[in-house]
Amino acid sequence: MIPVEQTVLEWLRQKNQRLVIAESCTCGAIAARLGCLPGVSEYFCGSLVTYREASKQAWLGIDEELLHAYSAESPEASAAMAVHALVRTIEANLSAAVTGHFGPNAPAEKDGVIHIAIAQCNDQRVGLVQAETVRLNSSSRSQRQHEATNHVLRLLVETWKSGS
Amino acid sequence: MIPVEQTVLEWLRQKNQRLVIAESCTCGAIAARLGCLPGVSEYFCGSLVTYREASKQAWLGIDEELLHAYSAESPEASAAMAVHALVRTIEANLSAAVTGHFGPNAPAEKDGVIHIAIAQCNDQRVGLVQAETVRLNSSSRSQRQHEATNHVLRLLVETWKSGS
Repeated sequence: MIPVEQTVLEWLRQKNQRLVIAESCTCGAIAARLGCLPGVSEYFCGSLVTYREASKQAWLGIDEELLHAYSAESPEASAAMAVHALVRTIEANLSAAVTGHFGPNAPAEKDGVIHIAIAQCNDQRVGLVQAETVRLNSSSRSQRQHEATNHVLRLLVETWKSGS
Repeated sequence: MIPVEQTVLEWLRQKNQRLVIAESCTCGAIAARLGCLPGVSEYFCGSLVTYREASKQAWLGIDEELLHAYSAESPEASAAMAVHALVRTIEANLSAAVTGHFGPNAPAEKDGVIHIAIAQCNDQRVGLVQAETVRLNSSSRSQRQHEATNHVLRLLVETWKSGS
């Protein structure tokens, strides 16, 4: 079976697209998975691993007010991360972002819940094309990194299959 | 035996420091390792995973001329990454950066060679405190991510032990 990250790279190659990632809870795990593929540097710009609110503001340019109004672990935050990552990366035309709370000490309704967003840039217009909220099955932080990474890569493939 | 990333977190806690990472070849693997530790978000700002020259320029503000004069896989590039990551992250006072060529198709003298740099900010002055070049023993990209991550975390611990 072809690993999902290989399918993502195949999509980028076929459509000659460049991908940028913005990660919070996965903390670089999506980038690291893609980075294992030879030749990926032609199509993968990198990842803004914004692990604190101040990094989301300084590196991505996300408004403090948005983070406080909706929280840093919200669909609104992941959408803003995906859009701003594209804006900050001129050579990219596709982005994926994920945020969520991996615990411990997360409120029950947030524990292991992730928010994924995918954005594209067409004709210099940036727009959100996919968004999904998932409750993870795993419990440890390293398992959750892995499971969340799989969900983000899967959603990228689904975006491709849906013809975006 | 205590994992090396746990020792790094212990240092950050004891000295109340905040760490930022700039990664090229490890592609997020250092951040992902740190992200597995509960409570690390208090001390870890995140990672700028700059996997292409354009990302090193846009996200970190590194001069194109420096990258072309020395190459993106050079001690000079890793030093610039460490220093610029600190400048771009106001709440951080410690940074680590790594660059190198993981192959395939790397020139023999570059294949599996990494350049690590560690910088600190004291009294609003940013300066390089450690630099090291290492030839990795492993050959696959995923093994090299892991081995290089260990070297960067080890050098952070050595910086602590040396009293910086």
